[in-house]
Amino acid sequence: MKSVFHHSNDDPERHDRVLGNIANLIDDDTISLDAVVLVANSGGLSLLLKDSPYQERVETLLNRGVSFKQCHNTIDGTDITGEDLIDGVELVPSGVGELTRLQHEGYAYIKP
Amino acid sequence: MKSVFHHSNDDPERHDRVLGNIANLIDDDTISLDAVVLVANSGGLSLLLKDSPYQERVETLLNRGVSFKQCHNTIDGTDITGEDLIDGVELVPSGVGELTRLQHEGYAYIKP
Amino acid sequence: MKSVFHHSNDDPERHDRVLGNIANLIDDDTISLDAVVLVANSGGLSLLLKDSPYQERVETLLNRGVSFKQCHNTIDGTDITGEDLIDGVELVPSGVGELTRLQHEGYAYIKP
Repeated sequence: MKSVFHHSNDDPERHDRVLGNIANLIDDDTISLDAVVLVANSGGLSLLLKDSPYQERVETLLNRGVSFKQCHNTIDGTDITGEDLIDGVELVPSGVGELTRLQHEGYAYIKP
Repeated sequence: MKSVFHHSNDDPERHDRVLGNIANLIDDDTISLDAVVLVANSGGLSLLLKDSPYQERVETLLNRGVSFKQCHNTIDGTDITGEDLIDGVELVPSGVGELTRLQHEGYAYIKP
Repeated sequence: MKSVFHHSNDDPERHDRVLGNIANLIDDDTISLDAVVLVANSGGLSLLLKDSPYQERVETLLNRGVSFKQCHNTIDGTDITGEDLIDGVELVPSGVGELTRLQHEGYAYIKP
């Protein structure tokens, strides 16, 4: 099974929740997981910036095989570039396009 | 691929976000799109009322082929009727029924 | 068709909304429904506690065939046990695992 988490909120409590949700999914031995992806757009960007308070937890999940994808539209017109994202985070043309593609590939959708 | 956006919030920032998300999806050349639908219920209604500040953007998306569907349950017991919705918006018996039907037809679900 | 409602918010207005949404789905005669499930995690827990102001409405939906599933991770490390949940609510190892499993079984996902 495969799951994609959609994260679009810049509230620290919601950053904490989505990271906890992903760890809980990986730790759930009753689920046979093939892939887990987080797609960030809108306020979700602040979770994935270098030197964010969440960097270590994001890196731990990257090392456990989770993919992190940031919407390019969200950073268009800002000073932020791919260089400002935590190493290993991938830019995708649009978060909503990626969410569409992944669900069509059989990913379950979860909005924490 | 097909996508349905679920909109249930009356916060102007969220109205703005869902319209921007839909435009971003249509503009994403890496996605081959067959259909895009917005289903509004609860607070999402205020996006689709005639003379809303969003009417022009909704009409632009209608002209680009996006379907807008308003939950009938949301207006039951109010003074609002189908006449009060932006021309081209369709009433459906229930928003949650429509979201169920569309996902069973292969639509990806996105909650901005 | 089958639907799973994901409920993760402890706001009374959101409790009210999710219960109303589920009733609206069951009452929608245009939808042929095989199963409806609510999965609660994070703040959604407070909807499913015994003696909550929502107990009677939850019981009514249980009697109409809706399944209610509470994430075990949410109560880990608290004083709350399965005994504190409304009779008929089932504990699942993780809410996000259950949401993944149900979508892979063909359930549509709805976040009210």
